[in-house]
Amino acid sequence: MRATTIHAPGDIRVTEVPDPVLKRPTDAIVRVTAGCVCGSDLWPYRGENPIKAGATIGHECIGVVEEIGDEVTTVRPGDFVVVPFCHCDNTCAHCRAGMQSACVNLGITSSGQAELARVNQADGSLVALPEAPPEDLVASVLTLADVMPTGWHAAVSAGVAPGSTAVVVGDGAVGLCGVLAAVTMGAEKVIAMSRHASRQEVATAFGATHVVAERGADGIAAVREITDGVGADAVLECVGTNDAMTTAIEVARPGGGVGFVGVPHGVELPVGTLFSRNVGLRGGMAPVRRYLPELLDLVLERRIDPGRVFDLTLPLEQAAEGYRAMDERRAIKVLLRP
Amino acid sequence: MRATTIHAPGDIRVTEVPDPVLKRPTDAIVRVTAGCVCGSDLWPYRGENPIKAGATIGHECIGVVEEIGDEVTTVRPGDFVVVPFCHCDNTCAHCRAGMQSACVNLGITSSGQAELARVNQADGSLVALPEAPPEDLVASVLTLADVMPTGWHAAVSAGVAPGSTAVVVGDGAVGLCGVLAAVTMGAEKVIAMSRHASRQEVATAFGATHVVAERGADGIAAVREITDGVGADAVLECVGTNDAMTTAIEVARPGGGVGFVGVPHGVELPVGTLFSRNVGLRGGMAPVRRYLPELLDLVLERRIDPGRVFDLTLPLEQAAEGYRAMDERRAIKVLLRP
Repeated sequence: MRATTIHAPGDIRVTEVPDPVLKRPTDAIVRVTAGCVCGSDLWPYRGENPIKAGATIGHECIGVVEEIGDEVTTVRPGDFVVVPFCHCDNTCAHCRAGMQSACVNLGITSSGQAELARVNQADGSLVALPEAPPEDLVASVLTLADVMPTGWHAAVSAGVAPGSTAVVVGDGAVGLCGVLAAVTMGAEKVIAMSRHASRQEVATAFGATHVVAERGADGIAAVREITDGVGADAVLECVGTNDAMTTAIEVARPGGGVGFVGVPHGVELPVGTLFSRNVGLRGGMAPVRRYLPELLDLVLERRIDPGRVFDLTLPLEQAAEGYRAMDERRAIKVLLRP
Repeated sequence: MRATTIHAPGDIRVTEVPDPVLKRPTDAIVRVTAGCVCGSDLWPYRGENPIKAGATIGHECIGVVEEIGDEVTTVRPGDFVVVPFCHCDNTCAHCRAGMQSACVNLGITSSGQAELARVNQADGSLVALPEAPPEDLVASVLTLADVMPTGWHAAVSAGVAPGSTAVVVGDGAVGLCGVLAAVTMGAEKVIAMSRHASRQEVATAFGATHVVAERGADGIAAVREITDGVGADAVLECVGTNDAMTTAIEVARPGGGVGFVGVPHGVELPVGTLFSRNVGLRGGMAPVRRYLPELLDLVLERRIDPGRVFDLTLPLEQAAEGYRAMDERRAIKVLLRP
């Protein structure tokens, strides 16, 4: 099949690789109809994570079930499915506790930017739609593989509640989905911290009530002012750097919560500050399958439109340009069509 | 008045100091009928916190209102009151959000081991009993000034819920109150990590279902075994050292929560572990006033008996012996009577 592969920092290609095959009776193979590039794909692209030269890359996709293992019972070939980037059996103790991203049978999509992807634990992971989504919903359905549930997880972890004040640190696709999540959960004030006009626009379209363009101390001061000096009830940290975490903790009110979903890179947590201000911290890899049914309903009922985070669609063969566009911040998020 | 004063590490005396006076119209003076030594008083006693030679010490007390400022309306001289160690106006934004320990008018009891104590923000802080408690309830009522609400805060911060599994790291008075809090909140399994027979006994009396005497890797393994390899839903970290925090995080299940109330000394938070296991962290100085009315009811109805953490009662004049007994772990907690 044709698949996006990474060979070195900055070196993304679309090459011919062996088709994925069923390895276990609980696997399924999905023919990808849409995949995309994730902000976290940029870590290896920028040489900040190790690379296995020639490996396929991409963990977000949707598509049609092509083949199923002998033990798969809940989906069948021809079904249109969302593929959560983290696969789970949805029956183990961690899954039952709602933490499917810690499933004892955890798997991760490894060829989402390709023609075919293998899914472990197909029964526990895949969620089928009644039929293939109409063209104008493809982008929003695709966000359900990762970026929208991840923004949702940030909001859940931060403790967003109806009537609350939320701040979102980070204006990447996850941050913007975090804005949409906070608004959908009923937050009254939603403050998006964003410097880029195109992203501010999406944040506002998603329902952000305030945009703070400043960073660092100025950004913290701006949020304090908007919150009458109190700070925010809930803060979504959607970047993963130390600066973003510092800002997130500083803008939370005493007793508030920070939900963090950006993979931490160089973050040092200030335990003294957390303690002295009773700021809670919670986050990690999103248990996508937990949120998926509810979010899929919201998308299919057209009550949320997270697909707006995609501002560039390319044929799969142009994946390298997609990475460049995101790396250079010319695009928020790139959709790839095989 | 007679008051406990600290002069150098290990040097506790009971000396004559000026009576506290009303400084603001919102203050009250309380005649202390019972005070006590807190685990956190041992930090300066052991030279690990700075000392101002001759300063009064002690932040936990109960007693009778002696005098009130002009603006105080909710208590009057003669009322028997619990004095939360952190004073608050109970009206500011932080208080209204339930985080009274971050009140904009925060005060701290500074002569709880003495004959008299000044309370700032008397209206927002003091909770009066219908009458002086019977002698056998004095110890339990005294715990409401700090140690019981602090254990309660650990349980709230950790997210203890009915039917959950809780682990308590630390068998000091706060940890033991944490056991009682988790049991009272309906946790089904409550695992007390304790090496000392006398403390294990109190933990069991408070309702702990399991006691783990091992520490470090062995202790973690023991908890994992009790929880069928899953880990605990909620962990109360009631010490404040790096070892205790490490244990707390390791015994939490993915998606579980750690509530920490021991003032952190040398704690380094492992952000990668928190992220990879979605373990939440929340804690700090307890908003005593928030929990006080509910806990006072439980004590007066004799449904909880946190006073069992006191295993030594001394006259105020023997405060130095009280410190020694706690420092040498001959006593769990020492009650002082002026």
